[in-house]
Amino acid sequence: MLGKTQPKISGPEFFIGRGDETLISFGSGQPDLPPPDEAFAILKDFRGFKYGQVQGNDSLRSALAAINPGTNADEFVITNGASEALDLALRAIAQPGARVLMARPYYYSYPRNVELAGMTPVYVDLDEKGKIPYEAFEKEIRTCRAVMLNSPSNPAGTVQDIETLKKIETLCDELGVYILSDEVYKDLIYVRENYSLHGERVITLDSFSKTYAMCGLRVGFLHSPDRSLVQKVIEMKSHTAMNTSIVSQAMALAALGSPRSYVANYKKVWMERRDLMYEGLKELGLELWKPEGAFYLLPKFKESGKVVHDLYYNYQMITYDGAWFGAPGHVRFSYALDVKKIQEGLKRLGQFLKTEYRSY
Amino acid sequence: MLGKTQPKISGPEFFIGRGDETLISFGSGQPDLPPPDEAFAILKDFRGFKYGQVQGNDSLRSALAAINPGTNADEFVITNGASEALDLALRAIAQPGARVLMARPYYYSYPRNVELAGMTPVYVDLDEKGKIPYEAFEKEIRTCRAVMLNSPSNPAGTVQDIETLKKIETLCDELGVYILSDEVYKDLIYVRENYSLHGERVITLDSFSKTYAMCGLRVGFLHSPDRSLVQKVIEMKSHTAMNTSIVSQAMALAALGSPRSYVANYKKVWMERRDLMYEGLKELGLELWKPEGAFYLLPKFKESGKVVHDLYYNYQMITYDGAWFGAPGHVRFSYALDVKKIQEGLKRLGQFLKTEYRSY
Repeated sequence: MLGKTQPKISGPEFFIGRGDETLISFGSGQPDLPPPDEAFAILKDFRGFKYGQVQGNDSLRSALAAINPGTNADEFVITNGASEALDLALRAIAQPGARVLMARPYYYSYPRNVELAGMTPVYVDLDEKGKIPYEAFEKEIRTCRAVMLNSPSNPAGTVQDIETLKKIETLCDELGVYILSDEVYKDLIYVRENYSLHGERVITLDSFSKTYAMCGLRVGFLHSPDRSLVQKVIEMKSHTAMNTSIVSQAMALAALGSPRSYVANYKKVWMERRDLMYEGLKELGLELWKPEGAFYLLPKFKESGKVVHDLYYNYQMITYDGAWFGAPGHVRFSYALDVKKIQEGLKRLGQFLKTEYRSY
Repeated sequence: MLGKTQPKISGPEFFIGRGDETLISFGSGQPDLPPPDEAFAILKDFRGFKYGQVQGNDSLRSALAAINPGTNADEFVITNGASEALDLALRAIAQPGARVLMARPYYYSYPRNVELAGMTPVYVDLDEKGKIPYEAFEKEIRTCRAVMLNSPSNPAGTVQDIETLKKIETLCDELGVYILSDEVYKDLIYVRENYSLHGERVITLDSFSKTYAMCGLRVGFLHSPDRSLVQKVIEMKSHTAMNTSIVSQAMALAALGSPRSYVANYKKVWMERRDLMYEGLKELGLELWKPEGAFYLLPKFKESGKVVHDLYYNYQMITYDGAWFGAPGHVRFSYALDVKKIQEGLKRLGQFLKTEYRSY
């Protein structure tokens, strides 16, 4: 027991900072392994302190353009993580009350981001395989200003078929609908190569947080081939934040210079954990999508809110209620923790399933 | 001449990154002297990479509470500079179309920040001494949701009388109007001690940028005694940016730990430059307010836009058009540059006044 009072678990923010060693956290979606050494190596000589370009350092944008074929440094804006990229992109395309489509389950910030930009979120439910049902999508998108895509998906862990993504690309292009493509997990796909969406109205959101394990440093970026949109974003950012931290940007640039093996080795670690978690949860009899990317699993549970509560207070395990992601009746497990902790977590979960959960 | 094409100078952003050595820049409002050594000293051992608290690191908020009597660590939110604090504060109190009062001349972002939050900026003009005329203020404020104060003022360089500030404090408290008090220059007042505004509806915006010369590191903060408002800001920030860069926060904390003499010595440097600039501009026959704080002067000029254009293209000097700050017919000079450059700049300005300017 963690104590006599058991405050209600309201959302992911409840768990922030609860890092007790006895806890097993399947909660927060952040890598536990460190960034490449290169990112820290630049710090000892770092002496910058003046404003940087609001758009982001030239060197970092040029490096991003170099590894993203068909792009130009002028088309990027470096942001305070993908979160700020998302906020600015939505504010840049905002029309009061306009509809913005997203797949459900969704990353928990999306509906709120849309609302904060004065627009209205609408949803299309993933099918039984965790994929976007194209027919339903096609129907909804015609009344929308934009669609938010997130493949691989947080929290679903699934990856959309390239065929579907291409159909969406074509349709949105025809309709003049913006695609906000959140590709922060693009380097963590286990089932195929990444497919990045392209088009005049595609705004790509990406980040160093997952690929280079730099969540707390807050370096993300936005890409759009539409220069006037990019200018609009820069203009807004000059009033709402100014440049992204220059020291964080320097670390991000150094991370990009690390050997490509960093990312490849990292993916191996994730795949090992994924296999352990997926097999473990299946063996416990849970029903879930096969994880294809990112580092989340979303098994079905009766009374997911109560499950999250009981696992925390009685088993010292952090999990996230699917309801926070538009998926009540599911619990999200992040496998961003080491194998020994995963094994211990699965043991505790097995205990819970054999006891309390039976009486739900 | 800098070249044959002379693109129009559209606003402050035009000059960003134009750091040619032959240029004399009275433009950007950022310290040219470095932050305390302590800020850089922590970098060599810095190894953080995980998400921090969205509200900001405990240690940094506690340190701020310790030096701000009557405050508590829970009442602060650490932000990406005062800019993000301003954006979040306005979004937190936003009511569609509500009026937000500000003194004119204003910091150039203010009207845009208010608009981005879906509200309407309204103005009260500073009087001939650069002070807020209380009667006019009293009339306007009654129809407003909030007022933005900035004392010392960027771009006016003036400081409001404590008596006026107290009257505004009392009146706004009675009326239930929010005060957004932008105190980023509070440690750069030359004429009296600082007076920080207080009250249930006072939201203080502050920053490490000016006091500790850390503009590019982007660490600011917001303070409010209203816990529900603070929670609202945190909730929004968890979707729009997440935590402020943890490495920038670590540098800010270290800066707070530097000897207090850092700030005092710094002020001496500013005062020396101020005297040089103020006397210099007076000797050139310009009409201007006596600078009482911050590091700006706002002399009157005919055709300020043309002055800024000609000074840049013909005299290699960066200055900012007062029109960008709601003060056409004025030019803003920042004195954030060393004495030799100030002297050279005054010489060039004298030349300009004796020649081109005569034919305006």
